[in-house]
Amino acid sequence: MEDVLRNIDGNFDVALRKLLELISIPSISSEPEGRGAIDRAAAWLKRELASIGLPAEVIPTKGNPLVLARSSNSSDVKRPRLLFYGHYDVQPVGDPAQWTHPPFEPRVVAEDGVHRFYGRGASDSKSQLWTFIEALRAWDNTHGEFPADIIVLLEGEEECGSPSLPAFIEDYRDQLDCDVAFICDAEMWSPTQPAITTQLKGLVHERVTISAPNPDLHSGHYGAVAANPIRILSAILAGLHDERGRVTINGFYDGVQELPAAVRKQWRELAKEPDLYGGVDLAGGITEDGYSALEAMWGRPTVDINGITGGNQGPGERSVLPGSATARLSFRLVGGQTPETIRQRFQQHVRSQLPESCTVEFVGSGGSSAVVLSQDSHFLSAAALGLQEEWGRPAILRGTGGAIPLVQQFSDVLGAECVVIGFILPSDAIHAPDERYDTERLRKGVRSWVRIFDEIRNHVPAK
Amino acid sequence: MEDVLRNIDGNFDVALRKLLELISIPSISSEPEGRGAIDRAAAWLKRELASIGLPAEVIPTKGNPLVLARSSNSSDVKRPRLLFYGHYDVQPVGDPAQWTHPPFEPRVVAEDGVHRFYGRGASDSKSQLWTFIEALRAWDNTHGEFPADIIVLLEGEEECGSPSLPAFIEDYRDQLDCDVAFICDAEMWSPTQPAITTQLKGLVHERVTISAPNPDLHSGHYGAVAANPIRILSAILAGLHDERGRVTINGFYDGVQELPAAVRKQWRELAKEPDLYGGVDLAGGITEDGYSALEAMWGRPTVDINGITGGNQGPGERSVLPGSATARLSFRLVGGQTPETIRQRFQQHVRSQLPESCTVEFVGSGGSSAVVLSQDSHFLSAAALGLQEEWGRPAILRGTGGAIPLVQQFSDVLGAECVVIGFILPSDAIHAPDERYDTERLRKGVRSWVRIFDEIRNHVPAK
Repeated sequence: MEDVLRNIDGNFDVALRKLLELISIPSISSEPEGRGAIDRAAAWLKRELASIGLPAEVIPTKGNPLVLARSSNSSDVKRPRLLFYGHYDVQPVGDPAQWTHPPFEPRVVAEDGVHRFYGRGASDSKSQLWTFIEALRAWDNTHGEFPADIIVLLEGEEECGSPSLPAFIEDYRDQLDCDVAFICDAEMWSPTQPAITTQLKGLVHERVTISAPNPDLHSGHYGAVAANPIRILSAILAGLHDERGRVTINGFYDGVQELPAAVRKQWRELAKEPDLYGGVDLAGGITEDGYSALEAMWGRPTVDINGITGGNQGPGERSVLPGSATARLSFRLVGGQTPETIRQRFQQHVRSQLPESCTVEFVGSGGSSAVVLSQDSHFLSAAALGLQEEWGRPAILRGTGGAIPLVQQFSDVLGAECVVIGFILPSDAIHAPDERYDTERLRKGVRSWVRIFDEIRNHVPAK
Repeated sequence: MEDVLRNIDGNFDVALRKLLELISIPSISSEPEGRGAIDRAAAWLKRELASIGLPAEVIPTKGNPLVLARSSNSSDVKRPRLLFYGHYDVQPVGDPAQWTHPPFEPRVVAEDGVHRFYGRGASDSKSQLWTFIEALRAWDNTHGEFPADIIVLLEGEEECGSPSLPAFIEDYRDQLDCDVAFICDAEMWSPTQPAITTQLKGLVHERVTISAPNPDLHSGHYGAVAANPIRILSAILAGLHDERGRVTINGFYDGVQELPAAVRKQWRELAKEPDLYGGVDLAGGITEDGYSALEAMWGRPTVDINGITGGNQGPGERSVLPGSATARLSFRLVGGQTPETIRQRFQQHVRSQLPESCTVEFVGSGGSSAVVLSQDSHFLSAAALGLQEEWGRPAILRGTGGAIPLVQQFSDVLGAECVVIGFILPSDAIHAPDERYDTERLRKGVRSWVRIFDEIRNHVPAK
């Protein structure tokens, strides 16, 4: 194994250069303009996988293609079958003016002794998928074979709700058959302490548009008397929480159980860490009454407003009483909450507050339930050991407010165990301007997988 | 006078063609891109005024130029001095997809027996200024002279708060000196009944941006605990009115007096008209408790939300907790309310509700107080008589929620009487998509001025 680690360190400049090449492809999945770059990124990954001995195919879907690669198994020896999941699509850039580094021209910048690179996808999730690809390359280069039977699955629609993934998993269940799926799309606990995510929230997006009975009007004439959709929408949004920070939607908490005492105890211990929130200032936020911030983030269902648009958006002022206004919301689910029920209850909630003559339209997307993974398995133990060896500190078993819908699908359809590992941090500006990553975490991320492979080889029996 | 009216009718096709030419110039004043068209419109108007014997100049300002024309007075006979005000700038188009007719390619369309033309500025206010220019042309063509000493003042910044006008009026007070200023930027009472506006609200625009202590964050991670500026802004906007529809800003109603009983009585009579609101549906709106819709529109101070923007504006969903959110508001003032006081009180109101660590920024523009004009003067009587002759029904003395800041400035600086007349209607989609006007109102608008000139000549003594 030391030879593999040396191979990684010796080849690091090449690995980094290739990763920056991948980040420079603007593979935005939620905007139609991103499609050309999506295809380029998929082709690029197919080439790279083939070059390390993993024959890959780009598999078309109704949406963006998946890249699927499998090691050829010539021997009769039964070995564990490991699947690695990552996604190559990225979030939109948002307002380009908020970026100080161009989002698709990554280069390494030395800052306070850290070598960082900036770009959309730098942390979420191109560096992540690159850690296991580079680890597999180094292992094969050194040993002339992979540490186990390998399946690599790279998705191009994660940032827009994975619409094509469920059908794909059904259709390709034989080719995806594995003992464990490593989902590499999650966070560390801190810059120096690794983590395995064992509790994930579900996710539902809803877009709501309220329209007045009239189109745009002159606000000087009708502002005093006609319906203003921004005013109506604001009142609905403002009323989504009560003064205790609880969601007011009727039935919202149905099926939500109190966090087990053991989990609360564990999370209270974790919450003693300094700089728990990666420099994020929680002042001015409203955490649900009776819960710590970590409990709310990992274990309580929430509703967030992700966007709002209505009326004048131009540079100058305009005395307009707008005909409609739109908000985009997302719900983070726990326990027994289902996407469909939450969606219905939210729509009822809005309709019950809609003034006479106004109309409402909903557009939903995404939809996954919460998942709690086993904390007791060979693969999880091997992963925890490998991480501890590389980072010198034990891996935290953590929760997250982020959703990874495929964890549920992998468990349900493939019956595979899922282990959710990742090497990014809140301070990487995920989904935000100036998204970033650093070379040292990349190097240690790659090395972590090699140590995990070694632990699996030594301690996990083939089935 | 009959000869003048015949001249108007005989020349109408030419007058209409020219007006459509003017409407086709996209002279948007609140967007920097509009500047080229502003200059073209000013030059076009200068040419047209010169061609009817009114030597004109285009006068530059810090913003958009004004067009000023004056008749030469060779005779020693004292005649009344009439000033005509109009504006040649227009509102932005807004969302072009909401227009079924292209906003700057006007042509006449026959619909239900009415000949309409569509375009930004078709009603507000290019047709309006064209009524008095065409009336002056016809009078001069027929009589070989104008009916009085004439000043024409055309502004290019009305739709963005007239920032350059106050200094201009001060600097050019001698050249603007007049007995009466006809402000042609107001509405009729109905398609068949003329009106003179004698009560106008003031106007203040404020843009408010609330920022969280953090830039954009991943809403899955921090949505449950960190400040969301859209949520904060929504609560502030929702709280601007109480359940009685009264504005909750501390001191907002200071200096506002109850409407005089006589005015309320007059407006209650007017409110009996059928189709009072030009097809606008007031259902779902919230009128201040204790006032009729007409009283609220014309005589009560209001606050309107004209625009809101925050977080994701892209085509797809994005799990972002935005770093900031912005709303644009306008206040319509009455009585003793001053723009500066209202602005201060609104800012105090927002600051008092701002959570810890969040910041707020305000950008103000515009600013005028309310005006109540005399209802008892020679010029007003002459105008009312002329309108009644043309339309066959008496002119209503009305109020409006719209602001015309220059009325105050003309009264204060020039000591001139102001008479506010216009020939547009709410159903013309002023400030909205598919703004429109019709040829018959244009023709009768031009003819109205000729009848008013005649009444002035016959009944108003020169000073």
